[in-house]
Amino acid sequence: MEDLTRKVGLAQINTICGNLEYNAKKIVQNIKKVETDNLDLIIFPELALTGVNLDNAICRHPIIVDENIKWINEIAKITQKTTALIGFIDKVESKYINSIAIISNGKIQKIIHKSQPENIQINGITYKITIGDDYCNLLQADSDVIISCNSTLSRTYKEQKLQTIYSNLAKKLSTPIIYLNQVGGNDGYSYDGGSKIYDKNGNISICAKTFEEDLLITNPFELAKNKTIIPQVQTAFSLDYEPDLERTYKTLVQGIRDYFQKTGLQRAVLGLSGGLDSTVCAVLLADAIGADNVFGISMPSKLTSQESKTDAEILANNLGIHFTETPIKEMVNTTDNCLQNLFSKVEEKWDCRYSQSYTMDNIQARSRAVILFGVSNEFASCITIATSDKSESYMGYATINGDMSGGIAPIADVTKTKLFALARWLNKNREVKNAIPESVILKRPGAELAIDPNTGKTLCAEDALMPYEFMDEIIWRIENKNENYHQMLNSEFVYEKNNNISKEQKTEWLDKFYRRMSFAIYKWSILPPAIIVDSHSINKCEYTQPITSSQINYKGISPEEIQRKICEA
Amino acid sequence: MEDLTRKVGLAQINTICGNLEYNAKKIVQNIKKVETDNLDLIIFPELALTGVNLDNAICRHPIIVDENIKWINEIAKITQKTTALIGFIDKVESKYINSIAIISNGKIQKIIHKSQPENIQINGITYKITIGDDYCNLLQADSDVIISCNSTLSRTYKEQKLQTIYSNLAKKLSTPIIYLNQVGGNDGYSYDGGSKIYDKNGNISICAKTFEEDLLITNPFELAKNKTIIPQVQTAFSLDYEPDLERTYKTLVQGIRDYFQKTGLQRAVLGLSGGLDSTVCAVLLADAIGADNVFGISMPSKLTSQESKTDAEILANNLGIHFTETPIKEMVNTTDNCLQNLFSKVEEKWDCRYSQSYTMDNIQARSRAVILFGVSNEFASCITIATSDKSESYMGYATINGDMSGGIAPIADVTKTKLFALARWLNKNREVKNAIPESVILKRPGAELAIDPNTGKTLCAEDALMPYEFMDEIIWRIENKNENYHQMLNSEFVYEKNNNISKEQKTEWLDKFYRRMSFAIYKWSILPPAIIVDSHSINKCEYTQPITSSQINYKGISPEEIQRKICEA
Repeated sequence: MEDLTRKVGLAQINTICGNLEYNAKKIVQNIKKVETDNLDLIIFPELALTGVNLDNAICRHPIIVDENIKWINEIAKITQKTTALIGFIDKVESKYINSIAIISNGKIQKIIHKSQPENIQINGITYKITIGDDYCNLLQADSDVIISCNSTLSRTYKEQKLQTIYSNLAKKLSTPIIYLNQVGGNDGYSYDGGSKIYDKNGNISICAKTFEEDLLITNPFELAKNKTIIPQVQTAFSLDYEPDLERTYKTLVQGIRDYFQKTGLQRAVLGLSGGLDSTVCAVLLADAIGADNVFGISMPSKLTSQESKTDAEILANNLGIHFTETPIKEMVNTTDNCLQNLFSKVEEKWDCRYSQSYTMDNIQARSRAVILFGVSNEFASCITIATSDKSESYMGYATINGDMSGGIAPIADVTKTKLFALARWLNKNREVKNAIPESVILKRPGAELAIDPNTGKTLCAEDALMPYEFMDEIIWRIENKNENYHQMLNSEFVYEKNNNISKEQKTEWLDKFYRRMSFAIYKWSILPPAIIVDSHSINKCEYTQPITSSQINYKGISPEEIQRKICEA
Repeated sequence: MEDLTRKVGLAQINTICGNLEYNAKKIVQNIKKVETDNLDLIIFPELALTGVNLDNAICRHPIIVDENIKWINEIAKITQKTTALIGFIDKVESKYINSIAIISNGKIQKIIHKSQPENIQINGITYKITIGDDYCNLLQADSDVIISCNSTLSRTYKEQKLQTIYSNLAKKLSTPIIYLNQVGGNDGYSYDGGSKIYDKNGNISICAKTFEEDLLITNPFELAKNKTIIPQVQTAFSLDYEPDLERTYKTLVQGIRDYFQKTGLQRAVLGLSGGLDSTVCAVLLADAIGADNVFGISMPSKLTSQESKTDAEILANNLGIHFTETPIKEMVNTTDNCLQNLFSKVEEKWDCRYSQSYTMDNIQARSRAVILFGVSNEFASCITIATSDKSESYMGYATINGDMSGGIAPIADVTKTKLFALARWLNKNREVKNAIPESVILKRPGAELAIDPNTGKTLCAEDALMPYEFMDEIIWRIENKNENYHQMLNSEFVYEKNNNISKEQKTEWLDKFYRRMSFAIYKWSILPPAIIVDSHSINKCEYTQPITSSQINYKGISPEEIQRKICEA
């Protein structure tokens, strides 16, 4: 039955994982808000009462489940005519089930479990209630409206994929679909809201705010005024990040803000090197937690240029964050003396000392981390920020106990070329224009930790690795096209269109990428939570690869070689 | 049909995750070994060709699947009459499926997929092939033999649980079960082998070696000579760890050994404080990778006692590992000067500087890590070892970028009281007796980082936290009994039997435990791989809890309080 007079409410709220009181109050406030609106239904997100991603926390805190049942019973008592759909965890014969409680007139009327979608009748209208990916199994139309409580992260191509699925499903079943998403950050997860209704033709009739709480009141049968154009997923790598930058910015800022708010943290301290990574982190932090809560510290070493120091200070002034300079030369020298003495003693027992090592470079990065963690240990509610980016994480080009250490890694799912684009976007779109000095964006990235023996100047990351444009296209192809080494070797990169490189050069870079990626796995396992923003990430909450798998032969071998090796066995 | 003349082979091999060539050669060697033995079957573990726990590595390395299909086809060509069952990854319409290839007479005869167990006929005998937990769904006997290729870790109570399940199933279906396990370490996972056959009465007729590769040739219908006594899972906490210590030792040594071998690493460097944690780590390392590959460094600071320095040196001599001493006083002083100057500048902008902080304590721990990582950066194939134990990890009583940093955390799943028992066991059972100085076992643990204001002596961990016996029982009850705060408060602890403590004291300790555990979550997320040994661990590959969930109310509240809070909302 279609009834254009009826109304439903979509309560897109931002919950705190495990904080039942906070979440329950938010739910009750929304129920009270619509008390006189004569709604059929008010719908809350999946696991609204407990928060999502509680995962196995329940093993350590079984009380959450018992408590959430007490809370849902008490919330039920205040309901009147309007039915509320509230995500919670049900307990059936000591099993915990992701569920939705259907409550009205002072009590729980029914409980729907995940993987067992059911229809309910409210004022003559049949609603099908689904949780998470339950909607995937809907094959025929047997309800007037489909409700999909589904938590989806803000990530590249998410909107495209979601629209294709929901729009096609609504059209196929000729049934409107209410898609209700979470909003808010949860460690590395940043949910973008944007709950919406797809009408029976598959067009979007109404859409909630993104990256904000919202309470949308509407009729579920209303037809869209415009046809929904389903955008295409990008099929090839491109340096034109513009269409994705606002979303990227909001995803990161929300992720940072909620990490601080939900853990009760307030302040951040980070090293400001005058380079791109720490610069973008500082801008995001200032916007997420307020400039007064951010302390940037320039820690020049012997290779730090005057330009870097100046850029760091100008940035801090432009952002209004606190800033000071603390040279680390003396710390590095003392450590170096201590180590040189030690190394000679170790060398008496062990061979294989590197003739050229990264030891000195890393001591600088680690001394800086000692300073930053000192500040976060000394001042209340303060954490250190890990400033590693995604390109360098893939290459293991970050220092353990150095720049990759901290409470959260805000940009560890943003590649370098995207960071450059984001820096330009920030300069153009933030209220204070051009906060980032142009020279930060123009200079070639490098940690100023070592001298390039070829040029006598400080080593640039691209010279040690490969051009970022090339590297980021490898990452993009692995994550989005599932391509292997040979497929990449045999198809043209964007970088090749603009630069004349030999097949040998390309092979060398690809080999270097795969070799470095293999040895970077162990760094990924101890990277702090990275806010997920791309379609795939190396955040350990969604990607795990055994460190012992570093011997994968990324090139493969021919059947003839295989035969030979089998004979030898 | 039962046929007591037929024979099968159980090839319990140790594979390297992702290294197809290595694994394939091992498979082929075993196939060749039994060529003339006239077996019906030779059975390899689940995913024998690719290694287990490849997880989503395949997203980054899709070539593994294509290559493993090439390999399985080539391996098939060398087979003769004896059928081989080989775990591999099948690809069906671009989906990857955990599968077993049944090969003989030069070709693949059939492929069995996970969740779709099937019967095969070999020389008149019907074998049911199951993968992983498929056996759970077997309800009736419709084969002569059940084969269960199932990877299970070495962990407390595993044997008990496994025997109950398999023994009962074999008896219920009156069908023998061949249980084939992995052996070997894989990051935090340590598989113990011990493949076995349960006869149709549920008794164990034969058992392969544990923690070693093995090739067992036997008749599947043979009846056990003895009845299997199913041991009971421990129902209460006990300080008597004796029955579990040999297994614990072997699990850890195998985990360390294979981490090094499979990553190509060779050497380990660790700080030797003279305390229990680093001492036990040093023994395990010496046994796993050889004493010559271990370097212990004593890094005394101003609070380090002469006894600690002596204990470290004696231990090193007893183990035959390399040893040297490097005082860190100068590093700590330089850092301290640098920081005091910085703190005064930060204080001009920020309030909430702690009057008593852990900053100085942590600088000592972090300076030591800078030294250790310096050595592992300077010498080839060397890593630093994280020496944190499980009790302290639960309490967040370990320093980020300090003692909890390294490539692997060997004892981060072993509680302190169990470590004491393990130390005594090592002194008694290793070839070189009493390698661990008695004073290490007798002294109360403490990191010698701070002075206890109450005693004027160096702070002991138990005084800062609570008695380890009490703490470890909380951990045990959470992990094994799923108990909550109130259940613990209201039942007697072992510690209470031997010590007279007030209810207030117990409440204080329990509250401290839960509060500290909440704030320790973020440390768990960056702890290096911990070798799993207990029935539950906080290794991030199996336990994840959002850092933003630190506000869980571990005590819960009454329905009346809930009502009041809902009214206020």
